[in-house]
Amino acid sequence: MKPKAVVLLSGGLDSAVALAHAQDAGYECAALSFDYGQRHRIELECAQQQALHQMVKDHRTATIDLRLFGGSALTADVEVPKDRDLTSSEIPITYVPARNTIFLSFALGFAEVFGAGTIVTGMNAVDYSGYPDCRPEYIAAYERMANLATKAAVTGEQALRIWAPLVDMSKAEIVGRGLELGVNFADTTSCYDPDAQGQPCGHCDSCLHRDAAFAAHGLTDPRRAPAGAS
Amino acid sequence: MKPKAVVLLSGGLDSAVALAHAQDAGYECAALSFDYGQRHRIELECAQQQALHQMVKDHRTATIDLRLFGGSALTADVEVPKDRDLTSSEIPITYVPARNTIFLSFALGFAEVFGAGTIVTGMNAVDYSGYPDCRPEYIAAYERMANLATKAAVTGEQALRIWAPLVDMSKAEIVGRGLELGVNFADTTSCYDPDAQGQPCGHCDSCLHRDAAFAAHGLTDPRRAPAGAS
Repeated sequence: MKPKAVVLLSGGLDSAVALAHAQDAGYECAALSFDYGQRHRIELECAQQQALHQMVKDHRTATIDLRLFGGSALTADVEVPKDRDLTSSEIPITYVPARNTIFLSFALGFAEVFGAGTIVTGMNAVDYSGYPDCRPEYIAAYERMANLATKAAVTGEQALRIWAPLVDMSKAEIVGRGLELGVNFADTTSCYDPDAQGQPCGHCDSCLHRDAAFAAHGLTDPRRAPAGAS
Repeated sequence: MKPKAVVLLSGGLDSAVALAHAQDAGYECAALSFDYGQRHRIELECAQQQALHQMVKDHRTATIDLRLFGGSALTADVEVPKDRDLTSSEIPITYVPARNTIFLSFALGFAEVFGAGTIVTGMNAVDYSGYPDCRPEYIAAYERMANLATKAAVTGEQALRIWAPLVDMSKAEIVGRGLELGVNFADTTSCYDPDAQGQPCGHCDSCLHRDAAFAAHGLTDPRRAPAGAS
C-alpha cells in the first residue's frame, strides 16, 4: 500500500510541481485547496485543472474567510505593488497574515481523517518574496507542533511530516523539475493581479520571479496567451 | 496604553472565564469565535452574550467549514457518548481533528492585524477530556511556531505569547475564578448534546465535568432551567 499524503494545492506553479514530485516519489496524494476570499478566482480553477491532470482522486476545497481580518493586498482592496525591487528585505503588502499557518492547520485535520502521515507544501525559501512563513525554520517548528497536536501522534501510531520538497530550490529549478515531470504549466497561475481572462500582469513580484524562471530555460511562460490570440 | 490580546471565545465556560481573567489582568481584549459547522448554534449565541456582558468592543466570528473532513461527533452526524468513564485515557469521538490548531491559527492572523502580542485561550489540561491539543507541551510548541510565522516576530517588533491562564486549573477552580470575577455562567454552554432550547443533557463528558465543578462550590449549574420552568 502506498503511503498517503495531503498536498496543499493553490493553483500556483510551486504546488503543481510539489504534487507531481510527491506522486513521483510514490505517495497516494489527496489535495486541499482554499476558497479564502482571494480576489482572483482563477487560482481555484487552476487548482481544479491540476488535480484533474494529475489524477488526484480526492481534492477538497475548504471555504474560509480570511477577509475578516483584512491586512493584505491579496484579500483586501489594496493595490498590488508593481516592478518592486525583488532584493528588498521588506515584507510586502501581498503577505496575508498567518495564511500558511492556517492552510497547514486545515491540512493537519484532513491528514488525520485521510490517514496521511505527510503534508506536502510547495513553499520555497529562495525566491519567496520575503514571507516569514515560508522559511525552513518555520516549517520545522510547525512540524514539531503538529506532532503534539494529533491523535495519531499521541497514540504513537503515526508521526507527521511537513514536507516542502521545493524549499531549497530556486524558481528556475522548480520550473525545471516540473518540466521533467510533465507538469502542465499553462494551467497554473502565479500573478497577484491577473486580468479578467486570467492573463498575468507581468509586473508584480510573482510575475517577475516566474518570467525569469521560464527565461532561464529559454522558454516563455506557457500561461501567457500567444501574440494575436484573443 | 493597555497591552492588547485576542481571546478565543467559544461560548463555553472556560473561555468566558479566560476572557474575564485577561481583562482583569489589564488587557484590552478583542474576541474571536468560529462558526465551524458545529451542530449546536447555541454556542455562538453564548459567545455573543459573553462578549456583550464583558464589554468586548471587537468581537468577530470566522466562518470555516470543519465538516469538510468529518471525523467527529461535534461536526458530523455521529452520536455523542453518554455517561462515559471520565478516567478513560482514550481520545473520545467528540475530538475534532486539528480544531485547536486551526482556531489558534486564525487568532494568529487576527492578532497580527489587531496588533496584539497575546492570544488567550481557555484550554485546560486537567479535566480536558483527553484531547491531545489541550496539553501544555502542545501550547508551548504552538507558541514557538507562531514566533517564526508572523511579520512582527520576524522584524522583532513584538513576540507572541499563547496564554492559557486556566491550563493548570481543575474545572472546579475555573468555576471558582469565574465566580470571583462575576462571570455570568448562565450564558455559557458546555454540553455536547443540548436540547432544542439549549438545555444541557447532563450525561456527556462535558456535562459530567461541569456539574461536578458547580457541585464542588455547593451550586447547581445556573444554565439549567429551574424545576417547573418551561
